[in-house]
Amino acid sequence: MGEFELIERYFSRPPRRAALGVGDDCALFAPAAGQQLAVSSDLLVEGRHFLSTVAPERLGHKALAVNLSDLAACGAEPLGFTLALALPRADEAFVAPLSQGLLALADRYAIDLLGGDTTAGPLALCITVFGQVPPGQALLRSGARAGHTLWVSGRLGDARLALEVFRGRLRLGGDDFEQVRLAMECPEPRIALGLALRGIASSAIDLSDGLLGDLGHVLRRSAVGACIELAALPRSALLAAQPDELQRSCLLHGGDDYELLFTAPPALQAQVLAAGARAGVAVTAIGRIEAEPGLRLLDAQGRLQTVQPQGFDHFAA
Amino acid sequence: MGEFELIERYFSRPPRRAALGVGDDCALFAPAAGQQLAVSSDLLVEGRHFLSTVAPERLGHKALAVNLSDLAACGAEPLGFTLALALPRADEAFVAPLSQGLLALADRYAIDLLGGDTTAGPLALCITVFGQVPPGQALLRSGARAGHTLWVSGRLGDARLALEVFRGRLRLGGDDFEQVRLAMECPEPRIALGLALRGIASSAIDLSDGLLGDLGHVLRRSAVGACIELAALPRSALLAAQPDELQRSCLLHGGDDYELLFTAPPALQAQVLAAGARAGVAVTAIGRIEAEPGLRLLDAQGRLQTVQPQGFDHFAA
Repeated sequence: MGEFELIERYFSRPPRRAALGVGDDCALFAPAAGQQLAVSSDLLVEGRHFLSTVAPERLGHKALAVNLSDLAACGAEPLGFTLALALPRADEAFVAPLSQGLLALADRYAIDLLGGDTTAGPLALCITVFGQVPPGQALLRSGARAGHTLWVSGRLGDARLALEVFRGRLRLGGDDFEQVRLAMECPEPRIALGLALRGIASSAIDLSDGLLGDLGHVLRRSAVGACIELAALPRSALLAAQPDELQRSCLLHGGDDYELLFTAPPALQAQVLAAGARAGVAVTAIGRIEAEPGLRLLDAQGRLQTVQPQGFDHFAA
Repeated sequence: MGEFELIERYFSRPPRRAALGVGDDCALFAPAAGQQLAVSSDLLVEGRHFLSTVAPERLGHKALAVNLSDLAACGAEPLGFTLALALPRADEAFVAPLSQGLLALADRYAIDLLGGDTTAGPLALCITVFGQVPPGQALLRSGARAGHTLWVSGRLGDARLALEVFRGRLRLGGDDFEQVRLAMECPEPRIALGLALRGIASSAIDLSDGLLGDLGHVLRRSAVGACIELAALPRSALLAAQPDELQRSCLLHGGDDYELLFTAPPALQAQVLAAGARAGVAVTAIGRIEAEPGLRLLDAQGRLQTVQPQGFDHFAA
């Protein structure tokens, strides 16, 4: 199958919202009148962002999910995306389920695949996602203020637990492994929560490179410090049953969580909890923003430690 | 150097037009009131779209240029772009000139690098470009009508001549080689021409995969046929001095030309020539759109041949 037939068969659908979709030099669309466009781009490379063992359907899901997660962190409403795909060969047995996983997630948000590019090359997917947000309402990394509560959605660390299994450092039974593998391969973008937090959260970021690293971005852009409580970090029963050191590293440095980390004034606690309930996702207070720069961790033994806001660095790993 | 330092040093600049640029989960911007957004995405992979011998500065230029070329083909005004970059390692001696070439072209169009992603991996660049165009004024592939004149900008085939040299099938002297190498490595996006052709051209496409292949897209989407005249195809003196067979293959199947192929009613010939003059680029009539499907070529000997609208296929090459 050739490049154009492949695009035609697996990636061309009539657009829902866009004026013009796949098949011309450009796609044409517009945000709603008066709204700003929110844009983010993520490149997933085999062996770095996903393992060669991943089912193509899950890979399709994940590639779009991690991009939607950036929109969620901004409180933006998804509109559409472009896909650029490098494939070792035009293999239908791979491309068909990949497109299925990708488009199933797109359907859930009623967004358009607007266009893109297909080429031969080492397996990689580059998605650029578009959303809309009213001016002044986007959630940014720069809005955290001393005294604000630090919150996180969902649970942390399961994706990293799966990676430990794949790396041969940990063994888990079949059902347990499937649970953490799902967390790693099928993250759920927190779009509904991001929208519900407009006007409530003072800052937000999505957790892709590990809690400490991503929190570090918020602290730097907001020029504040923070104290987080290790015991408060939400985790699965499976992770809670692991040795302390492993728990700590999965929770603080895990990466691939795709939960939202956000701040809000303490007076808005009830609104934050209501936003979580509306969005159908647990939200947990995990610490506090402080005026003093740096990051402090209250550990499981009640000791206060200074920690480095170090996350995953693609060139250091 | 780590990932974040690399982004900070080489790819972060205050945005000119955007409300928010590099450094948050999303960039925020808006097209001018009432205008549609035009979006296109291209992925360039080492060994496929560029050779490892290319100077990083030229690679940076070309990666953005081929994306801007898609905006040109739609008659859109460039606004900004995202860049996702996979690099084997964070090598400043490569990244610094790459960013220089990329941003120098961005500066010429006063557009923003809005955000993106950097990761370790086999060398690849994915750029998604954004422009704006008033509703109904975008140039599309679908507007060619029987009787319209077929036009092309600039000259065709020099980029392919350079590829023939790199493949060891042709030898050229130093200055001659530099001329064709420049055509291959530093294409000039025809933005000014695309804008000047709004309201004049009935259809347009940019030539990336070779004249016949890209013309084939226009014919299919417009449900028409065409006849082109080989002798009319604009070429450099250098290409004109090559053997007939080589000339023909460079002109018809070359690829990497990044010129505009467009159609216009014959009554608008003077306006087309004026648009070319305003944009500072030669425009040449090369044939005619016909109601009869298929593609016919009047060859150098005055014989009419039926040819296949076959272009470059990334999985067939």
